[in-house]
Amino acid sequence: MTQRVKEILSYYDSENPGVRSNIARFLNHGRLAGTGKLVILPVDQGFEHGPARSFAVNPPAYNPLYHFQLAIDAGCSGYAAPLGFLEAGAAEFAGELPLILKLNSHDLLLDERDPIPAVTGSVGDALRLGCAAVGYTIYPGSAMRREMYEELRAIAEEAKSVGLAVVVWSYPRGSGLSKEGETALDVVAYAAQIAAQLGANIIKVKLPSAHLEQAEAKKVYEAQKIPLEPLAERVRHVVQSCFDGRRIVIFSGGPREDDATLYEEVKAIKAGGGFGSIIGRNSFQRKKPDAIAMLHKIMDIYAA
Amino acid sequence: MTQRVKEILSYYDSENPGVRSNIARFLNHGRLAGTGKLVILPVDQGFEHGPARSFAVNPPAYNPLYHFQLAIDAGCSGYAAPLGFLEAGAAEFAGELPLILKLNSHDLLLDERDPIPAVTGSVGDALRLGCAAVGYTIYPGSAMRREMYEELRAIAEEAKSVGLAVVVWSYPRGSGLSKEGETALDVVAYAAQIAAQLGANIIKVKLPSAHLEQAEAKKVYEAQKIPLEPLAERVRHVVQSCFDGRRIVIFSGGPREDDATLYEEVKAIKAGGGFGSIIGRNSFQRKKPDAIAMLHKIMDIYAA
Amino acid sequence: MTQRVKEILSYYDSENPGVRSNIARFLNHGRLAGTGKLVILPVDQGFEHGPARSFAVNPPAYNPLYHFQLAIDAGCSGYAAPLGFLEAGAAEFAGELPLILKLNSHDLLLDERDPIPAVTGSVGDALRLGCAAVGYTIYPGSAMRREMYEELRAIAEEAKSVGLAVVVWSYPRGSGLSKEGETALDVVAYAAQIAAQLGANIIKVKLPSAHLEQAEAKKVYEAQKIPLEPLAERVRHVVQSCFDGRRIVIFSGGPREDDATLYEEVKAIKAGGGFGSIIGRNSFQRKKPDAIAMLHKIMDIYAA
Amino acid sequence: MTQRVKEILSYYDSENPGVRSNIARFLNHGRLAGTGKLVILPVDQGFEHGPARSFAVNPPAYNPLYHFQLAIDAGCSGYAAPLGFLEAGAAEFAGELPLILKLNSHDLLLDERDPIPAVTGSVGDALRLGCAAVGYTIYPGSAMRREMYEELRAIAEEAKSVGLAVVVWSYPRGSGLSKEGETALDVVAYAAQIAAQLGANIIKVKLPSAHLEQAEAKKVYEAQKIPLEPLAERVRHVVQSCFDGRRIVIFSGGPREDDATLYEEVKAIKAGGGFGSIIGRNSFQRKKPDAIAMLHKIMDIYAA
Amino acid sequence: MTQRVKEILSYYDSENPGVRSNIARFLNHGRLAGTGKLVILPVDQGFEHGPARSFAVNPPAYNPLYHFQLAIDAGCSGYAAPLGFLEAGAAEFAGELPLILKLNSHDLLLDERDPIPAVTGSVGDALRLGCAAVGYTIYPGSAMRREMYEELRAIAEEAKSVGLAVVVWSYPRGSGLSKEGETALDVVAYAAQIAAQLGANIIKVKLPSAHLEQAEAKKVYEAQKIPLEPLAERVRHVVQSCFDGRRIVIFSGGPREDDATLYEEVKAIKAGGGFGSIIGRNSFQRKKPDAIAMLHKIMDIYAA
Repeated sequence: MTQRVKEILSYYDSENPGVRSNIARFLNHGRLAGTGKLVILPVDQGFEHGPARSFAVNPPAYNPLYHFQLAIDAGCSGYAAPLGFLEAGAAEFAGELPLILKLNSHDLLLDERDPIPAVTGSVGDALRLGCAAVGYTIYPGSAMRREMYEELRAIAEEAKSVGLAVVVWSYPRGSGLSKEGETALDVVAYAAQIAAQLGANIIKVKLPSAHLEQAEAKKVYEAQKIPLEPLAERVRHVVQSCFDGRRIVIFSGGPREDDATLYEEVKAIKAGGGFGSIIGRNSFQRKKPDAIAMLHKIMDIYAA
Repeated sequence: MTQRVKEILSYYDSENPGVRSNIARFLNHGRLAGTGKLVILPVDQGFEHGPARSFAVNPPAYNPLYHFQLAIDAGCSGYAAPLGFLEAGAAEFAGELPLILKLNSHDLLLDERDPIPAVTGSVGDALRLGCAAVGYTIYPGSAMRREMYEELRAIAEEAKSVGLAVVVWSYPRGSGLSKEGETALDVVAYAAQIAAQLGANIIKVKLPSAHLEQAEAKKVYEAQKIPLEPLAERVRHVVQSCFDGRRIVIFSGGPREDDATLYEEVKAIKAGGGFGSIIGRNSFQRKKPDAIAMLHKIMDIYAA
Repeated sequence: MTQRVKEILSYYDSENPGVRSNIARFLNHGRLAGTGKLVILPVDQGFEHGPARSFAVNPPAYNPLYHFQLAIDAGCSGYAAPLGFLEAGAAEFAGELPLILKLNSHDLLLDERDPIPAVTGSVGDALRLGCAAVGYTIYPGSAMRREMYEELRAIAEEAKSVGLAVVVWSYPRGSGLSKEGETALDVVAYAAQIAAQLGANIIKVKLPSAHLEQAEAKKVYEAQKIPLEPLAERVRHVVQSCFDGRRIVIFSGGPREDDATLYEEVKAIKAGGGFGSIIGRNSFQRKKPDAIAMLHKIMDIYAA
Repeated sequence: MTQRVKEILSYYDSENPGVRSNIARFLNHGRLAGTGKLVILPVDQGFEHGPARSFAVNPPAYNPLYHFQLAIDAGCSGYAAPLGFLEAGAAEFAGELPLILKLNSHDLLLDERDPIPAVTGSVGDALRLGCAAVGYTIYPGSAMRREMYEELRAIAEEAKSVGLAVVVWSYPRGSGLSKEGETALDVVAYAAQIAAQLGANIIKVKLPSAHLEQAEAKKVYEAQKIPLEPLAERVRHVVQSCFDGRRIVIFSGGPREDDATLYEEVKAIKAGGGFGSIIGRNSFQRKKPDAIAMLHKIMDIYAA
Repeated sequence: MTQRVKEILSYYDSENPGVRSNIARFLNHGRLAGTGKLVILPVDQGFEHGPARSFAVNPPAYNPLYHFQLAIDAGCSGYAAPLGFLEAGAAEFAGELPLILKLNSHDLLLDERDPIPAVTGSVGDALRLGCAAVGYTIYPGSAMRREMYEELRAIAEEAKSVGLAVVVWSYPRGSGLSKEGETALDVVAYAAQIAAQLGANIIKVKLPSAHLEQAEAKKVYEAQKIPLEPLAERVRHVVQSCFDGRRIVIFSGGPREDDATLYEEVKAIKAGGGFGSIIGRNSFQRKKPDAIAMLHKIMDIYAA
């Protein structure tokens, strides 16, 4: 085990050895094993956005086995999906890569101002399917956030007691925020801090924009001259907001982007001290060889 | 056991042998045994629509034993009903065909925009009655969908742990959708995907129309040139949305139709790769010999 | 054990020895050990106000270990924080000072008239992390206060049954009160009484202003000539409202103030019979040596 | 994942994906990863034989960390020990190799004809410590065997439900057997079968002698001309007795032997189709470099 | 916190912060705080030997408060007693010193060859009384040892989950051993190892004699030239048998001895690397000032 991995694990020394082992599994798997960096493949869009919007552009991706194989072939650090997708391949790919069972899911068949995902899996499901972690999404800024925080807390306590790591997707949205505010630097940093305070072992946020949403926060950012540019500085601020870098925080891209932008973002994540990327649509919404090439290029940036 | 049945069962290799055995019971029963196709008789309309609307047109159908006998005589793959109907015949017909206990039911004595059925049976009931599966209905698009998804998840976890298969009726409705949207292709495909992600072993949806409901989805359907016609193509899209054909998905008709239409629909289901039909009102709302003839004709189409 | 500490503990003689031991741990720890006075470091602002607003002015404070070390180096009586911050240092600093796990937390990403914090930790978490007490915040005056009072009652019952002390932050706010009313003398005294009646072992309130909020109360304050000035008299009134001084009540400052004001307030707390201070932002929003010097000066005032 | 490992995992397709993942972890770890062979380090002798008898010949072995490091440095497939030894190193070596928590233990401070080990750990301990499997010892031939079989059955049911693999040490002894009979071919084969029938995923037995213990069995061995020599043939017979090679069966040596004998035994295990070795005393009762050299040599034989 | 205490705590890094905090409380309390040495007062003789045999020689010792005060006045590291004695003083002395609730107790009103103590307290009692640890006695060598080991394991799992440390008295006796064997070096070392393997955080054994009890062990002691003299070497061997010094092991004296012998024993414990003494009868079976003088002298030896 590398020094860097040992150092990261030391941040979690209040967790039991089971949780630490499972965090280690991600850090020691795939092409980035040992570097302290992670590239995770998440495929929850079938539930979150619907099947056609997710998979029609690359039809083999309708098949749940496709994503297991993609994550393996690309040497990803882990694979995250909801219950059905994991159940469809967990037996065939048993033991091949660390899995994250997403325990709550949200669909778009109803338009809501303050959504709350449904709990669609259990800690027992995660154990039975051989997962290394459970995942849970919170929406800070939503009027339903209290329900989500409390659900997460109960799930995290149960999961950790049986040695599973806890991954939190912290995505600001809801009636407390403007659309632009959802990715504002102050809001993303705050959402990351909330996830960390709720006991997340690994935190996933979106890349922050240079926008500042909240007036009270804006005063501080200006007074303290917290840099808003370049992106690497914003990443650094989010990392700092995750317990000064003592919690693993990884960044997602969002909808498909051109690759040059994507690689620039990855370079910024690395320069700012981020722990890696979680890349869904940019991975599976293209042909598999292209996806592997793209993921390898990203991993090379992190490993450099 | 035929190769096709073995292949279908292989899609469920994360499930325990009990669940797999019970899925196999449907696939190996009745006139379609071994073909990989299913025709199931569901009779929940007494609860869902009221007795007269359901049975007055063919009074022997008031008798719950009638439906067991019809399913047996017609060589159906299984029979699904709520608690009372199953309790009324499960002893007399013990061991004669695979049963599905529908665990939630909804009535029409109150008009609701966002309905949620009541849980009217338990996993324990299903075991005690000798059922091979439990059934549960979700309404994607309803403001109550979170409660339904969470109830289903808990029931599915319990049912599978004792070896019962899980059948999900996924019927879009509620304030998120227009009336036409309830059977829109994008919505039906999405609803089927949600059921699969929630862990359904067998999914039941309505035949989709060529309508597209959601603007964001429509863009993708047009960009990717997903065909809206003929019906067989729409079926194919729904099958694809059920994990690329790795989950059994069957289609319902709806209110009584003329038989020619019905047979055309079955041909389309077959042509599109669907796994079969679930035919209630069209079966029991006619004289029994006619019903058997009609069901045999449908089975012949599937078996051809 | 000093006479004063023994006297204070005697106020709690209906509690089990575990609770009393844990109250004693605060009274016998740090530079004020044995004096009957407490200075506690609370760091919940990362969750309550966001990371930048809390820590940017003194960036080492982003690191959760910083606060453990600050509380130890300054000789504080205890340290209070939410789950994540305690998990991040509880192993490394095991046994070094009495800890309070704050069991509910509130963020500012949604503006609410009648807020209620989320429950973000459990009594089990407090035991597993080696805490001496749990903390809980109530907002008297909020339309959600009943939920908070009932949640607190259940948590307090559980916590005391396993020997943990219960610390209540009682912060009036919500649609029942004007902004000025939140720190009005009658309201703060009332809020302190409510916490005491709910079974709090240690009560934390804000320093009261000379404002009187409620008309019915105002009549009595005037009729009974309850002095509104100076501050020490207001403190004395709050202490009296906490069961005539038979419950530990400590006072918070709020946002950073100039030090002269701070020391005057501490002198008033002491003169009015208050049990001490809980000082967050004024501690960690300055360089560590300055913070220690300031905290020592405050402790010297209490100890004099 | 190699074809051989996939083939072995296919033997366990009634287990849930969690159990299969954990079996895979042993098969994919260390120097024999992917070969389908295992060399496991077990260190339960401190409890089973006492500390001096176990460790005095190589005093660094008194330290529990020594064994973790030895297993890692030698590239073993896994490490098995009782609760205390695992607790002593599970945090420091979190994630470094697959662990087996031995759930029952026996000491020699009382001489018994029909011993039964005490249950000294739980499935919960195994999860909390990050183990891949639990271990349990049965003594077929003991008057207490029923208690052991029933205890094992309950533990195995619980362990598998949370995805842990089950390793059974099957050591014939007790009033039903002569001393020579404890390693008799018919008895070892029978004991291996019992473990397999009790649901063991991995079976550990001693190398069988050419002795036949039971008269009724002897008749069959002679009638069927089951070969008693050479050792490889006896191994083959035990492998056959473990569901015709469809359960992983590994062999232990026993007290320290000269290395030439040891290597001959390993060659015989390989020739007879055995899955590997579990080598305790021969590993840790010599200097660490010698142990590593010896273990590598054994692994080379298996890998050849 | 001293380096030595930090080092000792690091041996327990698989335990949660609560357990580590409570181990730290013993190491940081009393006159030996910070030295890594412990002197604990145990008073279970009222139950174990009867009141007159225990207290008549110094009648104030009939009063349970006497022992709390003695432990405090002498600056002991902690105090251990059964339920009744702790309940009698835990409120009055709340928070004054770390307590150990002995959870099983044995009396002499029945003469048994293979005794097993009764469980006379619970983990819940320990929390309610404000204890830092639970204590449990095992008798290796007894035909009832399996019941004791299993009881201890269950209690230890529960106690640790709520942050309590686990202290095990490991006293060989029963039909497996001769009278002389109960304190034989090989037996004491073996008994200490068993306690450590069962998950004990602190182990208490009797000082071993130079006798060797078991023939198989004797061979090893002679072959490996494990020194039997002087006493310090025997202590060193027991310390080594407690995971090479990575578990706290303390030694008891037994019946009242002359003080010179007692001090020599303490010097030997120190010289052999033992962690301290647990001294009951030699403490309370003399006048309090004499007891304090004696305990201080012992502590001075350890602290030197």
